[in-house]
Amino acid sequence: MADKKKQKQPTNRTTPRLLKGFRDLAPEDILYRNRMLETIRTVYERYGFQPLETPALEYVDALGKFLPESETPEGGIFAFRFEDEEWVALRYDLTAPLSRYVALNRNTLPLPYRRYQYGPVYRLEKPDPGRYREFFQCDFDIVGAPLLAADAEVCMVLADAMEALGLARGNYLIRVNNRKLLNGLIELLGLPDPAADRSTDEVPLRILRAMDKLDKVGLDGVRHLLGKGRQDESGAFTPGAGLSDTQVERVIRFLETGQADRAGFCDRLGAMMEPSAIGCQGLEELREIHAHLTAAGYADDRVTFDTTVVRGLGYYTGPVVEVGLTFETPGDGPEVSRFGSVGGGGRYDTLIERFTGEQIPATGASIGVDRLLQALKTLGLTGAETGVCPVLVTVMDKNRLPDYQAIARELRAAGIPTELYLGGRNFKQQMKYADARNARIAVIAGGNEFDNGEVALKDLTLGRAVSEDYGEDREKWREERPAQVTVRREDLAGKVREMLDPLPNSQGLP
Amino acid sequence: MADKKKQKQPTNRTTPRLLKGFRDLAPEDILYRNRMLETIRTVYERYGFQPLETPALEYVDALGKFLPESETPEGGIFAFRFEDEEWVALRYDLTAPLSRYVALNRNTLPLPYRRYQYGPVYRLEKPDPGRYREFFQCDFDIVGAPLLAADAEVCMVLADAMEALGLARGNYLIRVNNRKLLNGLIELLGLPDPAADRSTDEVPLRILRAMDKLDKVGLDGVRHLLGKGRQDESGAFTPGAGLSDTQVERVIRFLETGQADRAGFCDRLGAMMEPSAIGCQGLEELREIHAHLTAAGYADDRVTFDTTVVRGLGYYTGPVVEVGLTFETPGDGPEVSRFGSVGGGGRYDTLIERFTGEQIPATGASIGVDRLLQALKTLGLTGAETGVCPVLVTVMDKNRLPDYQAIARELRAAGIPTELYLGGRNFKQQMKYADARNARIAVIAGGNEFDNGEVALKDLTLGRAVSEDYGEDREKWREERPAQVTVRREDLAGKVREMLDPLPNSQGLP
Repeated sequence: MADKKKQKQPTNRTTPRLLKGFRDLAPEDILYRNRMLETIRTVYERYGFQPLETPALEYVDALGKFLPESETPEGGIFAFRFEDEEWVALRYDLTAPLSRYVALNRNTLPLPYRRYQYGPVYRLEKPDPGRYREFFQCDFDIVGAPLLAADAEVCMVLADAMEALGLARGNYLIRVNNRKLLNGLIELLGLPDPAADRSTDEVPLRILRAMDKLDKVGLDGVRHLLGKGRQDESGAFTPGAGLSDTQVERVIRFLETGQADRAGFCDRLGAMMEPSAIGCQGLEELREIHAHLTAAGYADDRVTFDTTVVRGLGYYTGPVVEVGLTFETPGDGPEVSRFGSVGGGGRYDTLIERFTGEQIPATGASIGVDRLLQALKTLGLTGAETGVCPVLVTVMDKNRLPDYQAIARELRAAGIPTELYLGGRNFKQQMKYADARNARIAVIAGGNEFDNGEVALKDLTLGRAVSEDYGEDREKWREERPAQVTVRREDLAGKVREMLDPLPNSQGLP
Repeated sequence: MADKKKQKQPTNRTTPRLLKGFRDLAPEDILYRNRMLETIRTVYERYGFQPLETPALEYVDALGKFLPESETPEGGIFAFRFEDEEWVALRYDLTAPLSRYVALNRNTLPLPYRRYQYGPVYRLEKPDPGRYREFFQCDFDIVGAPLLAADAEVCMVLADAMEALGLARGNYLIRVNNRKLLNGLIELLGLPDPAADRSTDEVPLRILRAMDKLDKVGLDGVRHLLGKGRQDESGAFTPGAGLSDTQVERVIRFLETGQADRAGFCDRLGAMMEPSAIGCQGLEELREIHAHLTAAGYADDRVTFDTTVVRGLGYYTGPVVEVGLTFETPGDGPEVSRFGSVGGGGRYDTLIERFTGEQIPATGASIGVDRLLQALKTLGLTGAETGVCPVLVTVMDKNRLPDYQAIARELRAAGIPTELYLGGRNFKQQMKYADARNARIAVIAGGNEFDNGEVALKDLTLGRAVSEDYGEDREKWREERPAQVTVRREDLAGKVREMLDPLPNSQGLP
């Protein structure tokens, strides 16, 4: 019989699994993230941005194909369809849905429209450690804003957000480039006219994507990607853009200009861009952004210009921006590495035109919520521990559950998050549970306590604290804080508060 | 040329559309909802619940088929798959993913596990006004809680949440039933043994679903659904459960018992359930819940028992609960209607067993965020208006944009949400925009003001307020609040604050 049962179960059971590249979020991460988002939202609202929420599902044609991964068979997106219906997809960013929203509400929406949005986005990429197929972004955009002052403001919002989160100046840097500068560079390469040879259509895009890989593959890797192609360590081959050696070196020289103070950057690139009208225009735009930033007091220590900023998404038309965290994180080897990008964006003047036929210029940026949270944790900037329920009311006698519930209610009414143990197991197991839950106080009452109108409070932090190093004060501290006290029932909430007080208040308290 | 352009555009353009049954959320709804969720979360945390977030996508087999719509071809869910891959689906509730989570983390998760979760869920139902295919739930559950004290606590949490949101006692009611009572009723009908006739397998489920339709189709409609079937006004036919007239009337009598004070309910159903062991057990459980609720001070005006509570989802095994809003809303016709259900839940002792083979009893409930928000709006309980950016800095001279940005920065630094107009249009259009945005103050500065170190502030609420009825005080009020004042630049933030003060503070202020 027992054997039969054993044989039967495995075939009937469903295996609990997460989809590849998906994850469950831990409570402390959710609470830290909520706090972080609250700070970011406050900054966005200071600049007049309003919230919007669009659905996770959109028609594929409304989203468009702008992902760097759109070369893969699935185009990098979670697209599907039901019989006879049109293709739909989970959004891969929050900008494409914003464009659809603006186009749909064009006649009633006052422009400029400033909106912020937080939410999950979905990409069918190869999952890596720390890189998920469902991840979270918090965007802000100004739609109907032709002025470069808007791009300058995007930089200011990003810088303000980083500082509001506690990142010191010097630990972050807003890096700006211009797609027009990149287009100027490509113009200067003298590529064959795509009208004459359709096979060269994609070359400019491939050049940009090769440049965008600098962080991952280094300058030599980019050289290969610009030329004949690159084989990675796993043996996988990525075809190159097919540039000649001279052309490749020209791009590399541009990348090597790298990051510079804004005025110096414009001077240095002026001569290089001289023969390209679009390149000169790009540089002129950066000069104007520089003037706005300088007037607003955002110096080179907060916003800098950088030739290596490209941005992967295909819809950018002008200035592009990236938020880099510049503090060092110890790597596996001897070299240290920078934390890297936690967001970015840029100007997309033609994205909404796809729907409306009318140009509605727009600019904005996206903060990568998961990466930024990871950064704040690394720097210890997530604030005090949250989400722990500090008090567990234990159950000595199941028949008195209503009395235990009454105790729990008293504490909750006093604003103290309190759990009543409802697992139906013995006292020892309840104490183990209290420990696993990181509860700080166990409330204990049996027949005697109830008869005497009393209740016992066990300090659970004591055991944990004493095991750390308190040096000479350890015994003294232990004496002053006895592990268990008995109090009159009417003093319950007051005493619990007093016991919780030496440690930071729980988040749940008003 | 112009003609050619006109002809070309429509074929190239994408039509901006939302998926059927999906919607964009308006800013004020998002801000009201965030405030509402904050209140609900505080109540959940008071009871020791911790947040969890699971992905929107899960494997179909992990979600299971528990929807009332699972009779439709698509099973009521958004399921899809990529070539060669397994079927995945957007979650249709937050309970099935919780079960998957608990099963996956069974070895490290201390039980009882109390979690809350907010998020969108997806159902492929026929969209109705106010009924969407993407909607939002905020759940709380206690997993590993065999005691009925846990079900009583679920009722308390729901009642506390409603009152924390400002709903007066009497405007909401928690209604409780027990699936075991319903199973007792079905037992008493003397249905043929499904082991003998497989075609009768589904009859009990059909009976429950017919009963669950009471709100929508009335007692007579339920009669038809229990018997031979029902044709609705559109002519669509729903097959019935095939009960005899006697059986149908037995179910109707049970439903007619309806809602009653808890003690009276148990007395009244005692005789009816006497011959059914499972029915008696169900009643016994309700008596125990009644005792817990009474001891905790939750009387019949907050939590009542009701035979008509069924709950549509297939995984419930014991007590089921529904949160009804009982205030009257004027209907189209002469009759008034109650607002109806804004959430519910129940005990599901076997859902996790599907994965683990081991029974992990659980109970909890879900608040329907969209319906509840609608209710709070109807009752005027959403609090003060939020999300309006009160100040617009207008741009008289584009060449002075950095100076206008400096003005905006001063106000933001003082904690006043301020938008700089970046639309690049003329002053008249800027004032129209300020009005459309509901801005309260326009900041105006031209050459003269800059030369004199001054700035003009135009009170935009004045025009709006004066057009309302101020009776005799109207002229006096107008005199006291001139539409436009000029202030010294250094007094800017102070004066703006003073002008904003008579109206409630914007949400964005610290």
